[in-house]
Amino acid sequence: MKLSTYFRSSASYRVRIALGLKGLSWEPDYVNLPKGEQRDADYLGINPQGLLPALTTDEGGVLTQSLAIIEYLEETHPTPALLPSSALDRAKVRAMAQLIACDVHPLNNLRVLKYLKNPLGHDQATVDDWYRHWVVEGLQALEVMVKDYSDGKHCFGGEPGLADICLVPQMWNARRFAANLESCPTLLAIDAHLQKLPAFAAAAPEGQPDAF
Amino acid sequence: MKLSTYFRSSASYRVRIALGLKGLSWEPDYVNLPKGEQRDADYLGINPQGLLPALTTDEGGVLTQSLAIIEYLEETHPTPALLPSSALDRAKVRAMAQLIACDVHPLNNLRVLKYLKNPLGHDQATVDDWYRHWVVEGLQALEVMVKDYSDGKHCFGGEPGLADICLVPQMWNARRFAANLESCPTLLAIDAHLQKLPAFAAAAPEGQPDAF
Repeated sequence: MKLSTYFRSSASYRVRIALGLKGLSWEPDYVNLPKGEQRDADYLGINPQGLLPALTTDEGGVLTQSLAIIEYLEETHPTPALLPSSALDRAKVRAMAQLIACDVHPLNNLRVLKYLKNPLGHDQATVDDWYRHWVVEGLQALEVMVKDYSDGKHCFGGEPGLADICLVPQMWNARRFAANLESCPTLLAIDAHLQKLPAFAAAAPEGQPDAF
Repeated sequence: MKLSTYFRSSASYRVRIALGLKGLSWEPDYVNLPKGEQRDADYLGINPQGLLPALTTDEGGVLTQSLAIIEYLEETHPTPALLPSSALDRAKVRAMAQLIACDVHPLNNLRVLKYLKNPLGHDQATVDDWYRHWVVEGLQALEVMVKDYSDGKHCFGGEPGLADICLVPQMWNARRFAANLESCPTLLAIDAHLQKLPAFAAAAPEGQPDAF
């Protein structure tokens, strides 16, 4: 499998973790976002959205959208499971993942931050406030959601899963923008535990060959 | 089942369509977004995010996030299927749905449009431009993605599915904000077909009892 990735792309980071948890090897296709390589004709042929990540299967199938890719990996490589076994529990974990993937991350995507600067004319401090606002609002709600289900090391249950895969990259972003997460002690504890696991550590941005 | 819904909430609209396609009856719990009822303590007890929709099952389980709810309905009521049978095809349809649910809709959520006005200080015209910018950018990419899979009446294959469920509410929003979708003829044709189907028609905002 080939993964189109960029070290700091949070959605790519999710898929790198999932591939690691499933024990799957992959070949990287580095797409440099600040250089705009995601808008090259070659890459738009892979993903017309011009966003990362994309996964090309060994059979040549091209997949986009990180959560769709991870559900595909879950269906084609069920062990270890990234979702619980009951439909209700699966819905809980998917909701935690989607809270991050739908309601936090897209607001802080590079293309959105750029739009805030031009045409909207905001300075870096205002853009950073925007970033922190949505991260803190979203993660405070997630903190409440996980409390009933977390063992203090995972968002749900006793093994790493889809919600954890979304949480760790979001927490990495939150630290990068110095968001104050004092109000999220459970998430901080989960993140601290997960970061040490091999699949999470190997997927971290700073260790990727395209990191600078 | 009880659905916490607001007639113009696009994510609620998706779940209303899915419930209709599955032939499931539901009791409404109307949450008035402009009045801020989503931030009432009662509703925050259901959904700590203070966002719509939420689905309460007959057994008392509470589900949030529209795509997680629809996957739950798909798992618990598999017929008619809203996702294709092969893992690759399922990933394609989920990616189309997530393009809308992650990369278009959240940028145009009420809370985001409010933030653009206060604290950012933008006028209605600028907010409307923001809205249209993300709708058109997202739907133009979706237009490319569906071309290989659409029969001109559905985003993928020959039956309404998860991508269609996300498309129709987004097209409704696009019309509301007068976005120019001339560059998306396939999506316009799909939307025109789907709107006439009973499950889609019954879920439309203007027909909801809480519409004003």
